[in-house]
Amino acid sequence: MIDQALYGDDFIGWLEQPLATLDQASREQAQERQQQLTKPPGSLGELENIAVRLAAMQGRDQPALDRLAIAVFAADHGVAAEGVSAFPQAVTAQMIANFSTGGAAISVSAKALGAELRVYNLGTVEPLPELTGVEPRIIAPQSGNLAREAAMTAEQLEAALLVGREAVDTLAGEGRADLFIGGEMGIGNTTPAAALSAVLLGCSAAETVGPGTGLNNAGVLHKVKVVEQALALHQPHSDEPLELLRRLGGFELAALTGAYLHCAKLGVPALVDGYICSVAALLACRIQPGCEDWLFFAHSSAEPGYRLLAEALPSKPLLDLGFRLGEGSGAAVAVPLLRMACTLHNGMATFAEAAVSGSDR
Amino acid sequence: MIDQALYGDDFIGWLEQPLATLDQASREQAQERQQQLTKPPGSLGELENIAVRLAAMQGRDQPALDRLAIAVFAADHGVAAEGVSAFPQAVTAQMIANFSTGGAAISVSAKALGAELRVYNLGTVEPLPELTGVEPRIIAPQSGNLAREAAMTAEQLEAALLVGREAVDTLAGEGRADLFIGGEMGIGNTTPAAALSAVLLGCSAAETVGPGTGLNNAGVLHKVKVVEQALALHQPHSDEPLELLRRLGGFELAALTGAYLHCAKLGVPALVDGYICSVAALLACRIQPGCEDWLFFAHSSAEPGYRLLAEALPSKPLLDLGFRLGEGSGAAVAVPLLRMACTLHNGMATFAEAAVSGSDR
Repeated sequence: MIDQALYGDDFIGWLEQPLATLDQASREQAQERQQQLTKPPGSLGELENIAVRLAAMQGRDQPALDRLAIAVFAADHGVAAEGVSAFPQAVTAQMIANFSTGGAAISVSAKALGAELRVYNLGTVEPLPELTGVEPRIIAPQSGNLAREAAMTAEQLEAALLVGREAVDTLAGEGRADLFIGGEMGIGNTTPAAALSAVLLGCSAAETVGPGTGLNNAGVLHKVKVVEQALALHQPHSDEPLELLRRLGGFELAALTGAYLHCAKLGVPALVDGYICSVAALLACRIQPGCEDWLFFAHSSAEPGYRLLAEALPSKPLLDLGFRLGEGSGAAVAVPLLRMACTLHNGMATFAEAAVSGSDR
Repeated sequence: MIDQALYGDDFIGWLEQPLATLDQASREQAQERQQQLTKPPGSLGELENIAVRLAAMQGRDQPALDRLAIAVFAADHGVAAEGVSAFPQAVTAQMIANFSTGGAAISVSAKALGAELRVYNLGTVEPLPELTGVEPRIIAPQSGNLAREAAMTAEQLEAALLVGREAVDTLAGEGRADLFIGGEMGIGNTTPAAALSAVLLGCSAAETVGPGTGLNNAGVLHKVKVVEQALALHQPHSDEPLELLRRLGGFELAALTGAYLHCAKLGVPALVDGYICSVAALLACRIQPGCEDWLFFAHSSAEPGYRLLAEALPSKPLLDLGFRLGEGSGAAVAVPLLRMACTLHNGMATFAEAAVSGSDR
């Protein structure tokens, strides 16, 4: 359990809030409907499961995904000082500006999907002016260097988790969105993700560390050493998921974890992006089991650590197109699949309506 | 080579027409653009390849997929008399009516995608009245029972292939569509697909036969025997792909083969659906090598024979969601991925435009 003396009452009260429950009657009605549609039972595969799960989440036998909210959480990482990324740390702030002006992959996708996109800046080394669509929620210019110290203080962790809660409340609370997508940006953040994966999966740094945005082999070997150093420093001190997140995570990882937890508390379906987001989602499920009922996993990651992570995820990701970008881009690409699942479920004729014969067997 | 005495001059002249060529300059410009977009190079995985391939096909560095054409080819199969399907043969005609009234999966998907959908009825055992959106191109009420005779005469094969040509000309000729999708409907048609796969892949009926729309184990074992009987009867007589298609195929399989060939001749990108369509596409590539330059493969099939087939396909299917429906439904679900590939390629900012730093390495 968490050390309650370190955290505020509002925060602890929120963490203890129960999760929303699925509507089993709607699930059964949707399952029944799937059996009656003019196709061999099961022949639309995963899209049938999506429609049934969404029906249970939304409490209606004909689900819909009209309104879509995307929150991208951005932050810098102290561990970047160890030389673990192919890109300079200034890129975090530069990409936040690119999200704002609409040039990034997630901006372009969000517009194409008709989604509301908001960026939460949790702290960058390069300071940023006021930017359209960007909420400054600065915790610090960067997290602590997890190879040498805890990534966050308890106050910082609490603040970051609550930014996730705020994003879900603002963008998806009170029925404002049918689906929530979290994205992330933070140069160096495959390093905390690899460290957290290693602990969560009980494997070694060598198994979870990969090239991230494009390290060469020498860079990957160095990154393995950095993660090994971090694990040696922090792992002996806790196997409690919140404390692992505090020691080995980062601001945007914590905000994502808070967002997935809050989606499950509010009963908002969430679509989880690739490697970084899946680590945050797995943490959310460890912090509050049952959270997985509200999560869809969108996209595998080309990052090697993801293969091991995927085996521990509560459901299989929908897509495997070799993405390793982040930002929420893999989730955005999966949205049309979820929408098509609803469209087919709601729009197809039943055997009776179309006067089509059923199976002989 | 084909026996020219059996086929008409128009048909032979068409078969001998060369394929369209890709625009290498557009391909290179598109590749160059992908390197400059604000993301780590390669981090959008398969979507980058799609954008570059489409640029080469469309002869412009910024490709687009606005207009979409879907042709569903439907036909009955004499081999249904052997009891190889879980559904009665009447369902082929019933589903054509369901396509027409908009209740089938492909009808619902086509509407959602803004695609033009046309159905080509090549012959059903149950006769059909005139139906909106359905072109009667009746070759015979059903193909020959391939377990006991050739599925088609040379005249029938020629006619079926030319219906595929006609569909592409009508729906996508002279720039009328940016992408062509072929679909199929025909109770029993996983049996010819399994027989053709076994010959094309050099493997046994037991390796390619599966449950289709839902056979139980006893049904699958019986279907293996039927395919073995067909292979014993026909395989010794030819390894020429057109003759294999004539002996072991069916009207809709031939129409699809003709459609893919004609897409490649006209230079129209085609998106190939699951098991049945992939067999037809592989035949088209064997009939005229180079055809694969114009094909995208949309969706894996849950049908066991597909796993072997996939290894022989010229490119990896984009989706693997457990579909086994046909109709073109797996291709329809993949369309938003191709469209997003274009949207991202055309809409993202370059590093220079967004003033984002490139990689250090």
